[in-house]
Amino acid sequence: MNVTPSRLTGTRIMTAVEKRGLSVCLLGCGGMGRLHGESILRHSNLSGLSLCDVDPLRAQKLAGELGAEWLPLAEALSSNAFDAYFVVTPAAAHVEQLVQIVPSGAYVFCEKPLGCDMASIVAAMPALKPFADRIQLGFNRRFDPNMAALKRRILANDIGEIEQLRIVSRDFSAPSVESLDKSAGLLFETAIHDFDLTRWLLDDEISELLCLGSALINPRYASVGHIDTATTIMRGTRGQQVVIQNSWRTSYGYDQRVEAFGAGGRLSVPNPAEPLVFHEDAGGLHRGPISPDWFARYPEAYLIQDTAFLDAVGSGGAVSPNLVDGYMASFIAQRASESQNSGLLVSCKAHDGEFA
Amino acid sequence: MNVTPSRLTGTRIMTAVEKRGLSVCLLGCGGMGRLHGESILRHSNLSGLSLCDVDPLRAQKLAGELGAEWLPLAEALSSNAFDAYFVVTPAAAHVEQLVQIVPSGAYVFCEKPLGCDMASIVAAMPALKPFADRIQLGFNRRFDPNMAALKRRILANDIGEIEQLRIVSRDFSAPSVESLDKSAGLLFETAIHDFDLTRWLLDDEISELLCLGSALINPRYASVGHIDTATTIMRGTRGQQVVIQNSWRTSYGYDQRVEAFGAGGRLSVPNPAEPLVFHEDAGGLHRGPISPDWFARYPEAYLIQDTAFLDAVGSGGAVSPNLVDGYMASFIAQRASESQNSGLLVSCKAHDGEFA
Amino acid sequence: MNVTPSRLTGTRIMTAVEKRGLSVCLLGCGGMGRLHGESILRHSNLSGLSLCDVDPLRAQKLAGELGAEWLPLAEALSSNAFDAYFVVTPAAAHVEQLVQIVPSGAYVFCEKPLGCDMASIVAAMPALKPFADRIQLGFNRRFDPNMAALKRRILANDIGEIEQLRIVSRDFSAPSVESLDKSAGLLFETAIHDFDLTRWLLDDEISELLCLGSALINPRYASVGHIDTATTIMRGTRGQQVVIQNSWRTSYGYDQRVEAFGAGGRLSVPNPAEPLVFHEDAGGLHRGPISPDWFARYPEAYLIQDTAFLDAVGSGGAVSPNLVDGYMASFIAQRASESQNSGLLVSCKAHDGEFA
Amino acid sequence: MNVTPSRLTGTRIMTAVEKRGLSVCLLGCGGMGRLHGESILRHSNLSGLSLCDVDPLRAQKLAGELGAEWLPLAEALSSNAFDAYFVVTPAAAHVEQLVQIVPSGAYVFCEKPLGCDMASIVAAMPALKPFADRIQLGFNRRFDPNMAALKRRILANDIGEIEQLRIVSRDFSAPSVESLDKSAGLLFETAIHDFDLTRWLLDDEISELLCLGSALINPRYASVGHIDTATTIMRGTRGQQVVIQNSWRTSYGYDQRVEAFGAGGRLSVPNPAEPLVFHEDAGGLHRGPISPDWFARYPEAYLIQDTAFLDAVGSGGAVSPNLVDGYMASFIAQRASESQNSGLLVSCKAHDGEFA
Repeated sequence: MNVTPSRLTGTRIMTAVEKRGLSVCLLGCGGMGRLHGESILRHSNLSGLSLCDVDPLRAQKLAGELGAEWLPLAEALSSNAFDAYFVVTPAAAHVEQLVQIVPSGAYVFCEKPLGCDMASIVAAMPALKPFADRIQLGFNRRFDPNMAALKRRILANDIGEIEQLRIVSRDFSAPSVESLDKSAGLLFETAIHDFDLTRWLLDDEISELLCLGSALINPRYASVGHIDTATTIMRGTRGQQVVIQNSWRTSYGYDQRVEAFGAGGRLSVPNPAEPLVFHEDAGGLHRGPISPDWFARYPEAYLIQDTAFLDAVGSGGAVSPNLVDGYMASFIAQRASESQNSGLLVSCKAHDGEFA
Repeated sequence: MNVTPSRLTGTRIMTAVEKRGLSVCLLGCGGMGRLHGESILRHSNLSGLSLCDVDPLRAQKLAGELGAEWLPLAEALSSNAFDAYFVVTPAAAHVEQLVQIVPSGAYVFCEKPLGCDMASIVAAMPALKPFADRIQLGFNRRFDPNMAALKRRILANDIGEIEQLRIVSRDFSAPSVESLDKSAGLLFETAIHDFDLTRWLLDDEISELLCLGSALINPRYASVGHIDTATTIMRGTRGQQVVIQNSWRTSYGYDQRVEAFGAGGRLSVPNPAEPLVFHEDAGGLHRGPISPDWFARYPEAYLIQDTAFLDAVGSGGAVSPNLVDGYMASFIAQRASESQNSGLLVSCKAHDGEFA
Repeated sequence: MNVTPSRLTGTRIMTAVEKRGLSVCLLGCGGMGRLHGESILRHSNLSGLSLCDVDPLRAQKLAGELGAEWLPLAEALSSNAFDAYFVVTPAAAHVEQLVQIVPSGAYVFCEKPLGCDMASIVAAMPALKPFADRIQLGFNRRFDPNMAALKRRILANDIGEIEQLRIVSRDFSAPSVESLDKSAGLLFETAIHDFDLTRWLLDDEISELLCLGSALINPRYASVGHIDTATTIMRGTRGQQVVIQNSWRTSYGYDQRVEAFGAGGRLSVPNPAEPLVFHEDAGGLHRGPISPDWFARYPEAYLIQDTAFLDAVGSGGAVSPNLVDGYMASFIAQRASESQNSGLLVSCKAHDGEFA
Repeated sequence: MNVTPSRLTGTRIMTAVEKRGLSVCLLGCGGMGRLHGESILRHSNLSGLSLCDVDPLRAQKLAGELGAEWLPLAEALSSNAFDAYFVVTPAAAHVEQLVQIVPSGAYVFCEKPLGCDMASIVAAMPALKPFADRIQLGFNRRFDPNMAALKRRILANDIGEIEQLRIVSRDFSAPSVESLDKSAGLLFETAIHDFDLTRWLLDDEISELLCLGSALINPRYASVGHIDTATTIMRGTRGQQVVIQNSWRTSYGYDQRVEAFGAGGRLSVPNPAEPLVFHEDAGGLHRGPISPDWFARYPEAYLIQDTAFLDAVGSGGAVSPNLVDGYMASFIAQRASESQNSGLLVSCKAHDGEFA
């Protein structure tokens, strides 16, 4: 692939005719980086993809495999040659990298969470807020065809205003205790998706919440300051009642279900199973297991998400979910964490106005 | 009700006041006899129940348990003291007993099949036909709430005229080879329900059929002249295509499903499962087994059926399914048996007109 | 019915020798009274049933319809002629009537809730506690075949210790605002079943809870001091996390579902639908509605419950759920109501020990 | 794309040494041609793709869109520059084109059906049979993940030998009467998939069959010699009983279901629905519609199928399903057509041996 080095030369021609395309830079060449890289390369309006990583060898290797370019991380962060960045680095690095990137005017896709540490997020807001509509957060579930269909049904007023919402979000395999020093924990890494889903499905902000958490799967998690099981109860600003059930392990797969209830009945998204074969024998009726992980459950979601982002870049439109959504999900995770420690129903209202 | 006056001799009064009610005689005191006896005793318009059996001791015993009367079989058959009879004797005895009973003017409920032998059925028709609307056949599935709901949906034109119909009817446990000398076989004892369901759901007669049968479960069945597995394809008089799948054993319970297809889509009745508990584990999603037998699947159907019959007796109305339905189901079973032997698509039309 | 006149001896504990059938007195002849009356009359070990009501005419009328005796309420409460009482009067009268009945030594079946007012319940405890194992509370769902199967699966360790439990309990039709002056409200009348189910399924007590409630269906409920929608989050003494979703109306029927989650996966009881007919058309796949009310959903549960109670009376055994269960469910409802007002996570532990 | 120019040596069987990527020629540039073209271009072992069509402009247009080469049809058929051909032309042209291609030694993927006319198929067999293992037929359902999982479960002996098999195969929208002059009809174009599925799932040949067909959807189909609804009953050589229900239109989508029954119970593949959202309201429980057509139902199947074929080309292995499978499915369709006319159970055995 022949990457045009600068966005400013006017020559990012994709075909012999005159079609211009996007020049994209991807930061972070781990498994998630590869996933995004493959999605980016399938976009029809692409002129070039450059990869970088804190480990240059890793960037070079993936670049070779994908047929893309690579460049040093520092160079990428200071470049103004790109139309868009994908920030797929560890969460702790996101905010600082965003601050470096946005002055170039480029769009940024930032994997979730925006950060694990509200202090650094809050500190960065003055620099980032002017670019809020160019910063998309990686809440991929909004792009899952099932969740998107649920949202459409809600918007179509199938059930009216949501009165009660229930989200289940459970991982298949719990992390090893040893790996937890790198983890922002159940609320910041897993439940954060559900906090975002809640705001999106309710089309509203959370006014207050209480989170009960415990280490029920393995008490050793508690000894290193983690919980493995959480139930969060929340209230929207119009009184809607929300419940989120999180767990780090099921014995049966990646459990991601939503049920919304209102005057018009209830809408639910179950776990799809594939392949879809039933066996009936003396023990009853059996269907094979659901997907074991997010990769098997949401493969289309990533492609659709990245396509939507690059389409917005191409058209110069506003992205969604954006910086505000990333901020709010992290803020709710922070409040849930505080509630989980204090045992108090805490307000989530205050910071809402920051982005009004 | 047009009760024959001479039947009202004396004592069959239930309360001291003046409530008149039905005087019922039940022939056959085996398991099915007990089942019907209990249903009859729950009817609100009953004045008395008398039991008889070829074995008087069996009649006395059941009469004692149910709190009913008993009387000798010969006396019952020649009596004109009863408003209604239930004939729950072995199938080979049905026709002869019906011929003896009907001149009394009493209604008769006759368990299915009407008979196992078309020659004797045909021979009895001149005697029975004048009473066709007072002779109800024990096709209990018409009274099952699920099947009745299916029929209502068809009548409500949910799918239009049925174009394709599929019935599955499989027993849980195959009979022992030793017990088969008493069995009229898969087509006359099991499939006969499905032949009746077909006529009822189509609201039409069968014009032709082909039956493929084999002993696939146990080749010893073939050695005593029986098949254990049959697939029957039929055509209604308006071209509707019907398939019936029968088997003498499943490993998973009593499998009784219907699916009707037409211009308006498809209607289906699955097997209900009770209790309704799901378990999801590493092997997938599991639901407990379905009912093991007709007794667990259709308990309400017997009560509703017997109530409908006794209501018709009380009101003097016509019963349904009646003698004609019993005749036609046996006739189709006979034709299926012939087709199964000849490998030919055979006509079912000829005898249809007998009841026109 | 031949009512055995005596039973006046001090000892009501029946032995195989003297067992002659139970003499039962039913207080309250409304719709629920009739339901229990019919269940009682189907019991095999009954010698007589007497009905009474604050309105003697109502007692006489139902007695006539059921073929039972009647007697004045005051006489019933002071009699010692009965083996067992069914207290199916308004909840506000339960406690006082129990206090009057128990000195006779009779067993008492008391409809839920034990009372609507913790002060009167607490005041009566010294008088009632000695008879705790003879007082059964009407938590009928424990006897529903589906819920009982769920409990068996939990006891069989299918999923291990419950880590997360979710109960949905929603009525079909919300009460009129006018009728609310007689209602103890959503928490005391509806959710009380779920508080009992929780204790029973967890086999544990609740240590703390938070309840969020609102009038989302109709703001007029709030104007008369009621909520119509509640979500309650609770923790068991071993850290188990529980969520209960209550609502006074669905558009789709009586919604009663349970899902238990643990190391061995998840167990769930959905809403059964009957009749079970599916229709597939251009709009998709459709199944008919679920039961509209508790009567259609739990008919067997009442019969099984009343049979279990009368069996315990006959054998002289302890009943379950008993007075303690009735007390605890009301206590939890009381605490939920307080939490709903205060917005605080409240302890449920203190009173637990009263019955230790 | 850099097409490797040579491949002109006599031997097309690739070895690990000389493997440089496959040179593929695609005949037929309609919708199906495009679908295959896109699948081919995603294969990792491709050196070049050339398109041709009876209409050169159509070939040039698609070549431009896919970034592929094009060449005249006559040149393609006489070339020996290709490792593999995809024959996606009208069915009537398949056999003649295969005869022209196979002497070059190239592998051929031939869309189903092999032909619509048994005489021409039989006439071509002497020329084609030597290359049977290099000619893959487009029975894509074998590669559908659900059907493939069903096959694995059968091979794993989950239910033992199949005793009864039922296949439903119904199109969403019936063809216009006007378009039927180009159609080989319901049995040759739709049911042919089911005849192949049957042989594959049974791992056996069909010994005899009867087909009932009618124009039930639209009598005008009959006036131009077509049926729109068919039920076919078949028997495998070991007595297995098979039923296939075909229709040209449903009101609800593309209905493709299989149910296999044996001693170990039953295995079934239902219609998947996507997106998977349920709505429960006063009318009951609703799930959105299933896929409307083969394209939405089996997208993965085409990619997996074409990949399997190209993998076989690359490794020099035998393809499956092959020429024999194509022959047999057409032969069964032919016999079904004859049976549908004669009303006779016809043998399918004779030709079976041709390929023994």
